[in-house]
Amino acid sequence: MKIDFLQQAIDLAAENPRKGGGPYGAVIVKNEQILASNANLVTKKNDPTAHAEILAIRRACQNINSFWLTDCVLYSSCEPCPMCLGAIYWARLKKVYFACNRFDAAQAGFDDSFIYQEIQLMPEQRTIPMLQIDIADANKPFQVWNNFSEKTPY
Amino acid sequence: MKIDFLQQAIDLAAENPRKGGGPYGAVIVKNEQILASNANLVTKKNDPTAHAEILAIRRACQNINSFWLTDCVLYSSCEPCPMCLGAIYWARLKKVYFACNRFDAAQAGFDDSFIYQEIQLMPEQRTIPMLQIDIADANKPFQVWNNFSEKTPY
Repeated sequence: MKIDFLQQAIDLAAENPRKGGGPYGAVIVKNEQILASNANLVTKKNDPTAHAEILAIRRACQNINSFWLTDCVLYSSCEPCPMCLGAIYWARLKKVYFACNRFDAAQAGFDDSFIYQEIQLMPEQRTIPMLQIDIADANKPFQVWNNFSEKTPY
Repeated sequence: MKIDFLQQAIDLAAENPRKGGGPYGAVIVKNEQILASNANLVTKKNDPTAHAEILAIRRACQNINSFWLTDCVLYSSCEPCPMCLGAIYWARLKKVYFACNRFDAAQAGFDDSFIYQEIQLMPEQRTIPMLQIDIADANKPFQVWNNFSEKTPY
């Protein structure tokens, strides 16, 4: 852990509101070198997925031409929300360091903590109901995938 | 619920492997009209966040110039993973319908079910350890945010 990288993530976050973004920053590091750093751009880009961590993961992947960030470390000004946590797993990052946590975020008016509660409910019982529908072709995409010899697994 | 929209999401998913993408599709609907539809582009774009749902949310937001999708419904070929679930909450969608579930995805080699387990663990106990670091400026970004009168809350 290098405290400088975490400080950079915090500085990005603290400078961002006056640039029109949310108070979050993220830095991705490989072999002690910064691969990507981003602040939150949700409101600036009209993109609810444009969290600092998501943007840094996407940019780091572009920079190394890979959809995996094996051996990379994420430094974030705040504990990643469930969306960013999912992205961290899909990107196969090695480790995450953060400064604030989900409860600090909730106090500042961000719903991280609420989403962590919702995710543990049965899909149909959530505030945003998620309903499985019985349809004949449901498994067709996975059957096609399993039978397709030229696929790139991920 | 319109089964045609779910069928379209499945068709996008089933056609996608031979186009070089993963077996997932998503359609976002407002007032019975399709706002956006996308298949998975993770391997094609070297972007681990390019799930069908994330891409559809981003495109739908661009199409209506908003970072919220209030009153919109998501149809997905598969139960959204935790990353996409987070995005669904941030986008404030109204409802989600899906065909396959996380266990079908796991059988096809996708880690959705595993990430749902990981998210319930304490951050430091996860397979990808997530560690809170004590640093003096931790709360500075949220303090800046709270004191900034011209912010756009989201």
